[in-house]
Amino acid sequence: MRTARGFADSEEERKETGRVEAFSDGVFAIAATLLVLGIAVPTSSSLAGKSLLAYLEQPTHWTAFAAYVVSFLVILVMWINHHSIFDYVSRFDRPFVVLNGLLLMMVVFVNYPTALVANFIGTGGDNARVAAVVYSATFVVVAVLYIALWFRAALGRRLIAASADQAEVDRISRQYRFGPVMYLAVVGVALVVPWLSVALNGAIALYWGFTGQIGEQERLRARLLAASGIPPGADPSTDPPAR
Amino acid sequence: MRTARGFADSEEERKETGRVEAFSDGVFAIAATLLVLGIAVPTSSSLAGKSLLAYLEQPTHWTAFAAYVVSFLVILVMWINHHSIFDYVSRFDRPFVVLNGLLLMMVVFVNYPTALVANFIGTGGDNARVAAVVYSATFVVVAVLYIALWFRAALGRRLIAASADQAEVDRISRQYRFGPVMYLAVVGVALVVPWLSVALNGAIALYWGFTGQIGEQERLRARLLAASGIPPGADPSTDPPAR
Amino acid sequence: MRTARGFADSEEERKETGRVEAFSDGVFAIAATLLVLGIAVPTSSSLAGKSLLAYLEQPTHWTAFAAYVVSFLVILVMWINHHSIFDYVSRFDRPFVVLNGLLLMMVVFVNYPTALVANFIGTGGDNARVAAVVYSATFVVVAVLYIALWFRAALGRRLIAASADQAEVDRISRQYRFGPVMYLAVVGVALVVPWLSVALNGAIALYWGFTGQIGEQERLRARLLAASGIPPGADPSTDPPAR
Amino acid sequence: MRTARGFADSEEERKETGRVEAFSDGVFAIAATLLVLGIAVPTSSSLAGKSLLAYLEQPTHWTAFAAYVVSFLVILVMWINHHSIFDYVSRFDRPFVVLNGLLLMMVVFVNYPTALVANFIGTGGDNARVAAVVYSATFVVVAVLYIALWFRAALGRRLIAASADQAEVDRISRQYRFGPVMYLAVVGVALVVPWLSVALNGAIALYWGFTGQIGEQERLRARLLAASGIPPGADPSTDPPAR
Repeated sequence: MRTARGFADSEEERKETGRVEAFSDGVFAIAATLLVLGIAVPTSSSLAGKSLLAYLEQPTHWTAFAAYVVSFLVILVMWINHHSIFDYVSRFDRPFVVLNGLLLMMVVFVNYPTALVANFIGTGGDNARVAAVVYSATFVVVAVLYIALWFRAALGRRLIAASADQAEVDRISRQYRFGPVMYLAVVGVALVVPWLSVALNGAIALYWGFTGQIGEQERLRARLLAASGIPPGADPSTDPPAR
Repeated sequence: MRTARGFADSEEERKETGRVEAFSDGVFAIAATLLVLGIAVPTSSSLAGKSLLAYLEQPTHWTAFAAYVVSFLVILVMWINHHSIFDYVSRFDRPFVVLNGLLLMMVVFVNYPTALVANFIGTGGDNARVAAVVYSATFVVVAVLYIALWFRAALGRRLIAASADQAEVDRISRQYRFGPVMYLAVVGVALVVPWLSVALNGAIALYWGFTGQIGEQERLRARLLAASGIPPGADPSTDPPAR
Repeated sequence: MRTARGFADSEEERKETGRVEAFSDGVFAIAATLLVLGIAVPTSSSLAGKSLLAYLEQPTHWTAFAAYVVSFLVILVMWINHHSIFDYVSRFDRPFVVLNGLLLMMVVFVNYPTALVANFIGTGGDNARVAAVVYSATFVVVAVLYIALWFRAALGRRLIAASADQAEVDRISRQYRFGPVMYLAVVGVALVVPWLSVALNGAIALYWGFTGQIGEQERLRARLLAASGIPPGADPSTDPPAR
Repeated sequence: MRTARGFADSEEERKETGRVEAFSDGVFAIAATLLVLGIAVPTSSSLAGKSLLAYLEQPTHWTAFAAYVVSFLVILVMWINHHSIFDYVSRFDRPFVVLNGLLLMMVVFVNYPTALVANFIGTGGDNARVAAVVYSATFVVVAVLYIALWFRAALGRRLIAASADQAEVDRISRQYRFGPVMYLAVVGVALVVPWLSVALNGAIALYWGFTGQIGEQERLRARLLAASGIPPGADPSTDPPAR
């Protein structure tokens, strides 16, 4: 989550990054919301004499719910992650804006493999495998684009705020390298046990949501707030541990 | 509705909560707007020789309009309610952000049971019952998530602004406990008279919209404004009663 | 369009109205954008051997484009109009927020009659008449809700900023009364010449967009800016006439 | 991309242009996100016995992905471009707001020709040609509306900020004239080699994204920052060249 002020070096810089951030937030919000259109709604005629209860009890229908839940969580965590990057970035250049656009393009695209998983993960066989592989492979591409975006900013501190600590930047750089490896492993799982790969994507999202990048940010923010003289009562790092 | 400044203890905190609030607002707005896609649009071929007037006069078509109206109102009141929570919250921790994400996931999901109600409430029998139960049960889950979000912030004043009055926090805590009970009762109604449960959900939303949580907020805001020395002309608590 | 500062009496009030305005803006933007989904996209199979060119040349297809254009313009002008109201309003009460929600519900609903017009206005006969009447009648309801929203704020200056001139408020009150009458007249036209009523709705939107409510606002804004000592170079009332 | 402060002459003006910009940003974000709905999702029944892998390997399916990628990039660059205009504009008049609305209407409309390209570009023959021509012709109209919007502001410096350099305004005016010519040439290509015209649209978007209008803006911004005394460390014009 975004720290109170991040590391922008001036009010000028804050305004400059603000517009791209607001546009990105909008795309994340819409991409997550459109996922609900991927759950097929039965009609009287599509039930074909079956009862609605019997329809809803079908495993193939539950996979649509599961795909919705997992993808919503994944996009939510991507959004948190996106803010983490923008906390350290205090200005833009053209490649950064275009890479950000490509990343948003992939975030929106998540809707397509989600619908594939919703439609085929419950059918078993090769189709379930293909759907799960396309789904997990999408996140490999997303992870690679996050790396490209981060290193465009972090290499040589090209777009990093002057006030950001280099040791923290380096630690985040190391952390980002794990992403594609992890998601490639999930693609491997998808080839063997399709449904497990979908569950893994949800578990990874929940794990990152509760413990990941945000934790780092909060520690940094605590440090920043301490330096700025804001009283410790406003410091979330003194909160009780997450339940 | 959000008070002018809520209870954030500093400008720092206001900015921190602002981004999550803006993202949430976006999701609420899109979730409400997508509802209109749930009203099936007839085409020349789908009319199958019937006139458009005859089609529009069918009771099954009116249920789609009714479901749209009720769900739009419910999401609107959920949004007002969401702001009420954020008025008292001055900082975040990870569980709060994840719980907020799960809440948004359910708000968006409302589109699905709304479409079920639109398609089946007018057909009568078991299918109408199932649609109405799924619809009302969704709001039970939403009410439980609102409680989780509120108590994550309110227990031990973990994320509550220092300036917020504990008596008010306690009163809201008591109020939130009614939500799931009330919606569980509506599920009971759905089992017996499906259409009545949908109407009840709309009536509850209108009642909360006109008299509920907002009323509390306005009283608090009046107090806050009074304390801050803003002239009473700006005080909505002196407005004539709602028509 | 919103004047630079409108008439809010304090920074407090500006923030309070800001959130509802931002939410409303989001709903307007999404409602207008979803209109494009109402234009049916042909596929290889739906062409049924016909060429794409022949399909696109059909009058029934052009009605979908026309309905999109007219409704987009109408929602755009509704949005401008909405800002005009919020320029004069400096605080809220519950009925105002709920009336605003009902108005947004109707703005989003415009998608449905637009799709009816797209599908039936070109078929002629009673179905075209019904589609055009439903379309125009929707705007009667919208106009009534605008009146309700405005008079909730303006009656007894209940929610009007102290700095707003009563003579201007009265003039706007007179102006708003024309809306429902005008749209009722268009419903009358729809009963006789369906396509003309759709064209009239577009013409009214363009006329308001270029000359209507905004003109008033700019005059007011010029006055406000003059009073606040901002140099006349920033005054749009000295612009050359609209081309 | 928007410079830190653009050229608005006062805080008053910044707020006035802010609302229209925020609404426009919302429409751009939604228009880009809806593109993903244009990629047809196969279902068990639509596969008709074919395997999902075989379905995904079809060239006709890949055209849907390609159309999505190209149109997302094009809308992204349109958005960047839109901000460039608003950087120089410090106030509005009615024709400017209506022209902006017409431009947004065309940006949203891009969804329709994108779906045509997705469905027909891979089928070859006249239908592919028609889809590619409609697609490219849409961008001719968009380019003409950008010119109308820019010259409404720039002619006689009607809406241009007093602090903006006339030489830069003139250079942008010259640059905008190329748009329609370039897109008309792409329409010509569409008549001969349909798929090439789609690829050209993507290439133009990428080229503009990396080198176009933004470059100008950054140079201007550097100048502006220099004049305002902000230290050179915040100056992106000293960044290493784009990779």
